[in-house]
Amino acid sequence: MLHIVKIGGQVIEDKVLLAKVLDDFVALPGNKLLVHGGGRRASELSRRLGIEPQMHEGRRITGDGDLEVAVMVYAGLANKTLVASLQARGCEAIGLSGADGNVLWAHRRPVRNGIDYGWVGDIDAVNVDFIDRLFDGGYTPVFCAITHDGHGQLLNTNADTIAARLAEALALHHEVHLRFCFEKPGVLLDPNDDRSLIDRLDPLTYEHYRNEGIISGGMLPKLDNAFRALQEGVREVVICSPENLVEGGTVLHL
Amino acid sequence: MLHIVKIGGQVIEDKVLLAKVLDDFVALPGNKLLVHGGGRRASELSRRLGIEPQMHEGRRITGDGDLEVAVMVYAGLANKTLVASLQARGCEAIGLSGADGNVLWAHRRPVRNGIDYGWVGDIDAVNVDFIDRLFDGGYTPVFCAITHDGHGQLLNTNADTIAARLAEALALHHEVHLRFCFEKPGVLLDPNDDRSLIDRLDPLTYEHYRNEGIISGGMLPKLDNAFRALQEGVREVVICSPENLVEGGTVLHL
Repeated sequence: MLHIVKIGGQVIEDKVLLAKVLDDFVALPGNKLLVHGGGRRASELSRRLGIEPQMHEGRRITGDGDLEVAVMVYAGLANKTLVASLQARGCEAIGLSGADGNVLWAHRRPVRNGIDYGWVGDIDAVNVDFIDRLFDGGYTPVFCAITHDGHGQLLNTNADTIAARLAEALALHHEVHLRFCFEKPGVLLDPNDDRSLIDRLDPLTYEHYRNEGIISGGMLPKLDNAFRALQEGVREVVICSPENLVEGGTVLHL
Repeated sequence: MLHIVKIGGQVIEDKVLLAKVLDDFVALPGNKLLVHGGGRRASELSRRLGIEPQMHEGRRITGDGDLEVAVMVYAGLANKTLVASLQARGCEAIGLSGADGNVLWAHRRPVRNGIDYGWVGDIDAVNVDFIDRLFDGGYTPVFCAITHDGHGQLLNTNADTIAARLAEALALHHEVHLRFCFEKPGVLLDPNDDRSLIDRLDPLTYEHYRNEGIISGGMLPKLDNAFRALQEGVREVVICSPENLVEGGTVLHL
């Protein structure tokens, strides 16, 4: 069994919550893999450095300065804080960007319809052998949202996408349980009412809710990633909050 | 044979020099290990963030903000840039802080004579098994100047010291060749004359030069680290510039 858990960067900024999440993560049975975002620290650092965010249709474009900040915050501060905190719990964590051990190979997203997303990477390959070698040694990989193109260029890649691609690639040889943690207890019928949790969700119902506008915004790419992972052989995918990492949340099924 | 090479952070900022250094490094025979400093980027980032450097007798004190900057620049930007650049050369690099794989265990330097150096770590243990496992897998570890205390605290540790302690620990099972690269071609009789290179240096001559004030300043801790490494079983220690990584520099001997 392999548990892949994705946490948002904001968890790292809340010391009490982080301690609980890491305690729960460490207690999961079998092999474990953590993927994390960068949270508000990256935006905050960009602002302090006077880097103006460039947006296109609500999506942020990764310029030179943004990439440097992402590498510093994601691969540096967030990743090493998590690794040190896991080591303090007796978990043999090892922090990774996609460049380390050539573990996540990506290409820069091509300009499409005149939109250049900048230094954003779309994943081409996962080095499963390297990850399996770490599991064999008893290590727990901790992935940040940075990939590389194999030609020396680092790239910014969405942490949800990294978690989903890792889960799919590792599903060939592992029984993978994937949990996406975010700020809500799961997929909600009403984003403003935490009690409106959808316990179980299948692709047809998802399509219905999406067409009705009940599920929208940032939840859509998350669920698209999640259902694709199920279709690619991941055993279980759950959308939950960091508080209910062990049980609860929305269980997706085909 | 194991080559351990320490480069300063300033090499990373000079693209032409960096390319040459990494080409030379990759071409070294046997197992390889790179240790790097952070260079001016850390000071520059601190300045841009308005973090005032705190000094005590010429030594910088690592405050909360300084540690965050060090982790971001050393473990993030510098480390991942080097790893991606080595991967582009077909070298299976993997970037490490001391927390990753619990590879460098340190304690915060205690307050002595009223001087608190802040978040500075003195190394207690090197996880040689973990490094040997990486070598067995064909990987090249790339160490930044960050360690941890095993209780979740990251610490700032001098990169020269990390290189020396790694060399000593690995000398038990490897024939270790250690090269410290810095901005001069080696140890000089006259710091302003690159032609005054000392080809070979033994501890007695070093003591003489030190007493005469011919060797002074930042070269002293570098040479103390270097001679200690030789005494602890490292086969060869050389002080050189990044330009003469393969041959040249000052060869130390007992």
